[in-house]
Amino acid sequence: MFNSEFLLKLSDVGNDSPEYLETLFTLSNGHVGVRASEPIKRGFVVGNPGTFMNGFYDSYPIVYGEWAYGYAKNHQTIVKLPDIRGIVLEIEGERSDQSQWSITKEAFYLDMHRGKLEESYLIRTKNNKQLKLTIQSFTSFKYREIYASKYSISESNFAGEVIIEKDLQLLNLKQTKLTDTSDPRVASSKSQLKMAYRNSQIASLTTEQSQQTVLFTQMNQQTGELQSVDPLISRASILVQPRSIKSAINVVAFSDFYVDTKVTEQTVEDFQKRLTGMTYEELLIQQEQMVNDFWTVSDIRIDGHEALQKGLRFNLFHLFQSAGREGKTNYSAKGLTGEGYEGHYFWDTEMYILPFFIYTQPEIAKELLSYRHYILPKAKERAKEMGQKGALFAWRTINGEEASAYYPAGTAQVHINADISYAFQLYEKVTGDSAFIKEVGAEVIYETARFWLSYGSWIKKNGKQQFCINGVTGPDEYTALVNNNYYTNKMAQNNLRYAVELAERYHNLSVQNEYADWRKAAEAIYLPYDEETKRVKQDDSFFEKEVWPFSQTPKENYPLLLHYHPMVIYKYQVCKQADALLAELLFPQDYSKEQIIRDYEYYESVTTHDSSLSRSVFSILASRTDQPEKGYSYFMDTALMDLTDLQGNVKDGIHAANMGGSWLSMIYGFAGLSYLEDKIVVRNHLPEEIKELEFKLKIAGNLIAFHISLKRISAEIKEAGKPITITADKSVITIKLTEG
Amino acid sequence: MFNSEFLLKLSDVGNDSPEYLETLFTLSNGHVGVRASEPIKRGFVVGNPGTFMNGFYDSYPIVYGEWAYGYAKNHQTIVKLPDIRGIVLEIEGERSDQSQWSITKEAFYLDMHRGKLEESYLIRTKNNKQLKLTIQSFTSFKYREIYASKYSISESNFAGEVIIEKDLQLLNLKQTKLTDTSDPRVASSKSQLKMAYRNSQIASLTTEQSQQTVLFTQMNQQTGELQSVDPLISRASILVQPRSIKSAINVVAFSDFYVDTKVTEQTVEDFQKRLTGMTYEELLIQQEQMVNDFWTVSDIRIDGHEALQKGLRFNLFHLFQSAGREGKTNYSAKGLTGEGYEGHYFWDTEMYILPFFIYTQPEIAKELLSYRHYILPKAKERAKEMGQKGALFAWRTINGEEASAYYPAGTAQVHINADISYAFQLYEKVTGDSAFIKEVGAEVIYETARFWLSYGSWIKKNGKQQFCINGVTGPDEYTALVNNNYYTNKMAQNNLRYAVELAERYHNLSVQNEYADWRKAAEAIYLPYDEETKRVKQDDSFFEKEVWPFSQTPKENYPLLLHYHPMVIYKYQVCKQADALLAELLFPQDYSKEQIIRDYEYYESVTTHDSSLSRSVFSILASRTDQPEKGYSYFMDTALMDLTDLQGNVKDGIHAANMGGSWLSMIYGFAGLSYLEDKIVVRNHLPEEIKELEFKLKIAGNLIAFHISLKRISAEIKEAGKPITITADKSVITIKLTEG
Repeated sequence: MFNSEFLLKLSDVGNDSPEYLETLFTLSNGHVGVRASEPIKRGFVVGNPGTFMNGFYDSYPIVYGEWAYGYAKNHQTIVKLPDIRGIVLEIEGERSDQSQWSITKEAFYLDMHRGKLEESYLIRTKNNKQLKLTIQSFTSFKYREIYASKYSISESNFAGEVIIEKDLQLLNLKQTKLTDTSDPRVASSKSQLKMAYRNSQIASLTTEQSQQTVLFTQMNQQTGELQSVDPLISRASILVQPRSIKSAINVVAFSDFYVDTKVTEQTVEDFQKRLTGMTYEELLIQQEQMVNDFWTVSDIRIDGHEALQKGLRFNLFHLFQSAGREGKTNYSAKGLTGEGYEGHYFWDTEMYILPFFIYTQPEIAKELLSYRHYILPKAKERAKEMGQKGALFAWRTINGEEASAYYPAGTAQVHINADISYAFQLYEKVTGDSAFIKEVGAEVIYETARFWLSYGSWIKKNGKQQFCINGVTGPDEYTALVNNNYYTNKMAQNNLRYAVELAERYHNLSVQNEYADWRKAAEAIYLPYDEETKRVKQDDSFFEKEVWPFSQTPKENYPLLLHYHPMVIYKYQVCKQADALLAELLFPQDYSKEQIIRDYEYYESVTTHDSSLSRSVFSILASRTDQPEKGYSYFMDTALMDLTDLQGNVKDGIHAANMGGSWLSMIYGFAGLSYLEDKIVVRNHLPEEIKELEFKLKIAGNLIAFHISLKRISAEIKEAGKPITITADKSVITIKLTEG
Repeated sequence: MFNSEFLLKLSDVGNDSPEYLETLFTLSNGHVGVRASEPIKRGFVVGNPGTFMNGFYDSYPIVYGEWAYGYAKNHQTIVKLPDIRGIVLEIEGERSDQSQWSITKEAFYLDMHRGKLEESYLIRTKNNKQLKLTIQSFTSFKYREIYASKYSISESNFAGEVIIEKDLQLLNLKQTKLTDTSDPRVASSKSQLKMAYRNSQIASLTTEQSQQTVLFTQMNQQTGELQSVDPLISRASILVQPRSIKSAINVVAFSDFYVDTKVTEQTVEDFQKRLTGMTYEELLIQQEQMVNDFWTVSDIRIDGHEALQKGLRFNLFHLFQSAGREGKTNYSAKGLTGEGYEGHYFWDTEMYILPFFIYTQPEIAKELLSYRHYILPKAKERAKEMGQKGALFAWRTINGEEASAYYPAGTAQVHINADISYAFQLYEKVTGDSAFIKEVGAEVIYETARFWLSYGSWIKKNGKQQFCINGVTGPDEYTALVNNNYYTNKMAQNNLRYAVELAERYHNLSVQNEYADWRKAAEAIYLPYDEETKRVKQDDSFFEKEVWPFSQTPKENYPLLLHYHPMVIYKYQVCKQADALLAELLFPQDYSKEQIIRDYEYYESVTTHDSSLSRSVFSILASRTDQPEKGYSYFMDTALMDLTDLQGNVKDGIHAANMGGSWLSMIYGFAGLSYLEDKIVVRNHLPEEIKELEFKLKIAGNLIAFHISLKRISAEIKEAGKPITITADKSVITIKLTEG
């Protein structure tokens, strides 16, 4: 019973198109992601099969119709590697890719509790040989190089030989491309990979332009440990008998990636060594243990809605699967499930995905944050190129360089600097891990603060000198290149304040002449507010525009970006997402409930939710302002977004940030979690549709279990960490770090 | 003496680089433009030779790093045709392109008074054969198809045969490309032309993508009339004797262009017929007559500055040369002298070039305006694509479709609609040609007015509903995508008012339900003004920005657009050109002298003049506000811009709009010409450096000669047209159309 809630079956999902299923059932461990393609290869290609590696990309020049100084120079595009799931079956001399067989899917499910995919197929060949093929596969969380499959054959109606062939060379050459280049949200390039043997057991794939190389090998096991075979082609021969069950194991392993010139013989040897002596059974036990550990902390249990329960777990599982875990990669907008958005990392990580990790898997959060420090040199170069001091993080990137070819909705989103600062800060406050901030975070915070001082301007507003940030685009991409985007300014203020806090705490000599100016700018930052309507203004000119003619806009014209020229969209009061509300969500102590409700009503009326990041913000603020129907309704609109293929583009990959948003809607919304100046608060905002909500948070090393029902709220420390004080009343629990 | 002021010699010009000279000495008649390449072909290519035809372009898709709805789809690029000047000389079996000869330029000048280029070369072959080759050439203003050359040989030191060969096929294949694609101001494409025989005497060239075809033929004459020969290769054999002078005539003729599928046998025959029976001498006489007629009306004589006098005539002559004359072509930003800006037509025509034609060559003005009516269907399609009513003219185009690949400084410059309306209106007021407006102009004016009503918005400003135009870019491209660009709004108001005037005058049924709204919008249009400083605001947010840090900007960082990212430039108070001042120039009756001076001082302090269109506006307003030193100084900064190669890019073509600007600086500035509600006024604003200024204007069919000296101003009707009343006092002449 408990278990079945963790099994994602075909009957749980929105449709049965191959590309869609490939995405949904992708196995990933943050290093490698394997789309769940049809495993048995036929004479034709089904779907859009392939494998992705986090951070493995190719690069080529961006062509501009009209070039200007400072434009991003190169595309970076995640590379589709061979479909390592694909096998050719040979049954008594007949090959699956050369004749017409009847293949029936008997079972197909993702066991999210154990972190593996289970499949079985009933096969009848042209010569009426029948058998059942069962496949168990997983990407190992313990050894991120490894994708392991176990092929079992049973129920054969004959005695004879079955050969399972995995030909990675062939599969590579067959890689196809199914993208629509007229939609800016999908990728638009492809790389020809160069394959080469490094020794008899290790081969490599090298990208055309970026010269990134990954080593790979293929190992088989029939008895005992895994044995390296030819990395390009492996064959396992199985002698079957009716009523017997015989199995073969295949493992494909991908190394980390290198610049090709740095792959020495030693590198190859080390890779080989690391893989020696493994067995499938050990890998499987480790896998189950690690996934179990994940659920122990990160699971959310709700009562009263079985499909939703499974959908949430699906979201949590995918969130867990695709995160980079070694400090040099991050979280692609589509995870490692597809090539949408070219595999780029955005602010999505910091603002929609990291809270989940910070509060439940802080070790992964730390690795994701470390990535920003890793690319800090690139961000400093970019700031310089833009004529600014400090660092400016790329709006979209893999290698740290700006890859946005449309700067008004790319580079101009300088808020990403402050988003990153906010995430470091949240990490510190929740985990208490100040050592990491001192060693890694502070430099990022200082450099981003420096950027604000450089990019911003002191301008007289309402009779006094205020610190303004002109010429930016906020998260709402339906408004671009404005002055004083509220969200940006509010976040920059926070960035500056945090920088001052760290500078004072650590007495860093490098910033001692600067931080007084940071403080001055932070305290005098201009936050646009309309005194007449008492509303927060999205930016200086937002209320000077006409409201979008919603009543004259047919339904099929949404999302607007695919039906109207940007300059037309920009001249209206219309939001893809309401970034002013996001600011109110992030700084709850700064806004009265009345203020939030006033802003909520207005921004709701002009927001199209054309961004998948929009609804969770509306859900959370509705919950927090005691509008439970809206809180629930906005939540439900997107909680099952990918399972129901709401936007029809899951084929290009999951909406990772939206999955993070579903966690936020529940925990920041229904459970009212908020981080205030010196405490973390949980409140009961449960909508009546959800009877009970159980979840755990890790706060300062303490694992705390929360239980919320319509009537009560409780917390229990499951594992102790640093000293904390928990106080509770009927609907509020307050957690404070206690001076130890 | 008189004549020498019309001869442009090598000693008059800035440098001797071949590409620069090719541009400066280009011969053109508005249909064909022939760069003044080295005529005698050697074994290597010198410079960037070639021929351009107005409106003859190729087209290919614009590639965007990131696409969005409504983006311009195709580049249009003027096509470089073979260098029809090029000849190979064969002297006693020795060919100029196959051995090293000594060739000395003995004479080289543009006879601007007769419209022809005169050259002579002293040649010594490897075998010490010597002779002098004299070339006279012109592009015929009478027959726009024709480029005629007369080759005369004299002073030979031998008796024998000289062959002059013109091989257009060979020259076509050799066409080269000398553009720097990192500079957005130059072209970036090339087209492979397809050459084909249409009959034994007519060949054709067809572009690769746009499938435009031009017919061409080559004719020779040694005695009597011109004889068609092989269009690809012609040879003239000349038997020379020492002390004899022998000549050969070569004419290359280019037809209008057609869509290839529409070139029938009849088309070919018609073209051939049109050229039959011509002689070089007749063509030459007609040429001299027509150019003489031009100068009779359009010349400007100044006293006290010989080099300037010649430079001005150079500008006027080039203005005259490149204008389209048949209603289906316009005026390329570089005339027909080079491929800069891809041969596109911009607002430059209406605002900087047309005044010269309207006031002195109204027939040509009419043709240029007719072009806008010709492409009106494309402008209506574009408006529709942008979700708007009416017509939106392309910011840059040849065929009428938008070809701007960077919309913030392209499509967003919707002011072009009102610029076109302004030019039609000026044409009508100055010429009195209402019939043209009724038949051709009115439709353009109505459709552009419709666009404003559709694109603009009624918004509450300063307590009342005002008509606003948000999300536009004004002529100042250092500020983009703003609300209520002053210039745009002022011009749109004028567009709307003129539409109302025509609608009432002609009682057009098609607009009877609309023009009341046009009037309402025009009267309530919002014109941003800063009450505190009493300055016209360039747009809603201009004064909310920081002033560009001029003192920290090194000289080599200008023009800013080549050294700073657009979003950085946009966030400052800094102008490429001051468009608010342009509005004050165009509507002199609406601004007090004090207002203009106040705005002038301010905008001057933030303007870089990185646009070649900037300085003439500052010159004119300075003259009009009695700042003669500035008026003269800004004028002189650009009057000789191309002759001195001030910006170093004359190789890509002349700066046609700047040449128009030099006319404006003199006539609108020094002579204070302004068009007011119902009269035209000339005032004496002569700077002391210029002792006398003589020019003529055509007003309502009257040819009026003006004479301005430091002490007096006078006008004389040279030819009578419609009844006018001229009144004069010591410094002002007023001309009013009198009801006839």
